[in-house]
Amino acid sequence: MAGGEGKRFWPLSRRDNPKQFLSLVGGRSMIRSTVDRVLPLIPIENVFIVTLERYADETLRHIPELPKANLILEPDGKNTAPAIAFGTLKIKKLDSNAVTVVLPADHVIGEEDVFRDVLLFGEKMANRRLPNGDFPLVTLGIRPNRPETGYGYIKEAEVIESSEKYQAKMVQKFTEKPDLKTALQFLDEGRYYWNSGIFVWRVSSILEAFRRLLPEWYKFFDKILSDINTLEERAALVEFYKQIEPGPIDKLILERSQNTIVIPVDFPWSDLGSWQALDEFLRTGVEENVFFGEGVSIDSSGCFVFGGNRPIAIVGVRDLVVVDSGDAVLVIDKQKAQDVKRVVEALEKKGEM
Amino acid sequence: MAGGEGKRFWPLSRRDNPKQFLSLVGGRSMIRSTVDRVLPLIPIENVFIVTLERYADETLRHIPELPKANLILEPDGKNTAPAIAFGTLKIKKLDSNAVTVVLPADHVIGEEDVFRDVLLFGEKMANRRLPNGDFPLVTLGIRPNRPETGYGYIKEAEVIESSEKYQAKMVQKFTEKPDLKTALQFLDEGRYYWNSGIFVWRVSSILEAFRRLLPEWYKFFDKILSDINTLEERAALVEFYKQIEPGPIDKLILERSQNTIVIPVDFPWSDLGSWQALDEFLRTGVEENVFFGEGVSIDSSGCFVFGGNRPIAIVGVRDLVVVDSGDAVLVIDKQKAQDVKRVVEALEKKGEM
Repeated sequence: MAGGEGKRFWPLSRRDNPKQFLSLVGGRSMIRSTVDRVLPLIPIENVFIVTLERYADETLRHIPELPKANLILEPDGKNTAPAIAFGTLKIKKLDSNAVTVVLPADHVIGEEDVFRDVLLFGEKMANRRLPNGDFPLVTLGIRPNRPETGYGYIKEAEVIESSEKYQAKMVQKFTEKPDLKTALQFLDEGRYYWNSGIFVWRVSSILEAFRRLLPEWYKFFDKILSDINTLEERAALVEFYKQIEPGPIDKLILERSQNTIVIPVDFPWSDLGSWQALDEFLRTGVEENVFFGEGVSIDSSGCFVFGGNRPIAIVGVRDLVVVDSGDAVLVIDKQKAQDVKRVVEALEKKGEM
Repeated sequence: MAGGEGKRFWPLSRRDNPKQFLSLVGGRSMIRSTVDRVLPLIPIENVFIVTLERYADETLRHIPELPKANLILEPDGKNTAPAIAFGTLKIKKLDSNAVTVVLPADHVIGEEDVFRDVLLFGEKMANRRLPNGDFPLVTLGIRPNRPETGYGYIKEAEVIESSEKYQAKMVQKFTEKPDLKTALQFLDEGRYYWNSGIFVWRVSSILEAFRRLLPEWYKFFDKILSDINTLEERAALVEFYKQIEPGPIDKLILERSQNTIVIPVDFPWSDLGSWQALDEFLRTGVEENVFFGEGVSIDSSGCFVFGGNRPIAIVGVRDLVVVDSGDAVLVIDKQKAQDVKRVVEALEKKGEM
């Protein structure tokens, strides 16, 4: 899934250069890293990228070896559930027995060996029937190390399978972005995980979930499926996108399904949802300020400074994010990093995005 | 006097583009505004600019009508007393009866009619003998409207002359940059003025003061005077600059002389000694933030934002100075604006100035 529209990393990200194309960590773009991360496990022929039509060329520039037929183009950004529905149908057309791993293209993950090892366990679980006879919808839950209020939380229920290294558990409930007090309770209670947005399931399992939980969507699927790879494909998709009430897969399917399970995992992970999240992911705890690019810091701490070719000096300031993208400058209180969207909105109003 | 070296307005000012050449207020450069301010009173033939040799070309670019002979070039920046000594000798060579107005080229002044009117009163005072028979050294003292700790203060003594609009008073003492408590006492006591750095005196008066108070300087003056406008001029000056212990005219002459008087004045004035001072001069009290150039402000106040061709966004921040000079970015706590010098020093160490 690589359809992000790039408001959270303004001014580095723009409508025509969203986060998945940025090199925020490790020198490669987010989408390149995401593909590279699974290639030891999944050949490029089996990698499918769902993105917006307007990002098609740039996506292929980042992943030039991607078979062109594996680029799944949405006419519009409609959140994750429609993207997953359409992507799943495209894959079903090729192999209705496939197991799919759903990955956001703009997250960062460490310990990639562990990550791939978990995916193999996830695949195993996706093919193992639950006590009710259904195949599960597998989510990966990140063990939280702080009371993060920006993430969704998954609460575990009973264990349904244990391997030497991993466990799979039924899901009791989802909680989207709790307040700090609630997040602290979650941490204290210890049975909650961050929803990583990474899912593993059989094509047939997720389509069955759509049938049961979103029949008003499901009724379009036969038509789309038969039109795929014909001249009618785009029209069928446009009609579908026009008729549905879009939303995230978590809310529309996973938290309403009886078949959702969670595998608790420990690899380093961040959705890099804001400049603050990037700062958090990169900060080792030793440095006073995190600098990308050339700069000078005097009597300053807690700052995240992201520059390009020009030096950035910070003096006597605390907990700021300072970004110089070459064509704009942002100075924002780190705690308010989410509000960068309001800058994008203000500039859009002024016609300057 | 236009010899500033441009550390306080980094990154806009640089060693090769110091403050006198910047257009910080009103669209014209500081030096251009300073010359324009006196031209209704003083023909350009009588305007002399003391600057460093390396600023000669740029100075003439800003004041193209200046007779080349009126450009007085110092080999080195040695503070105001040597510049005034040399400038005064250059003028004495032309007219030993001249009255000179000494003006810093990088201050900002409002109500220019009043300013010129005060200069005329200053000239009158410079030609009026004190009770002791000497001619005075005239300073202009700005009536303070806040307990500024960055300025020097002049305390008045008895009135020696009153006109309809102005008074001239003996000076009791000078105090350089008081602490806040002292500055508040000064304001409360009411007989203190900011030292504007603007002086009026007869050439003969200031040279006599050098003779009495700095005889070790004065002994060079005859040689310099006879070498002026010959091939020996520069060598004589270099020798003088090498031998003396330089310093500001206030400290070396004015506060030690019995003949210093002050004319209290009320026109708007700032030495623009820092980004904070510029903010203070420009702020009307109504705006939340002061913006030069394009920008967006969200939940921010007290900020001074100086940009160029790229938008600058500030979000959730207070009392910052943000400057984008095109080749560097500065973010500094407004109260710490003086510390910008430390950035310049740090960059000089890294070889990047």
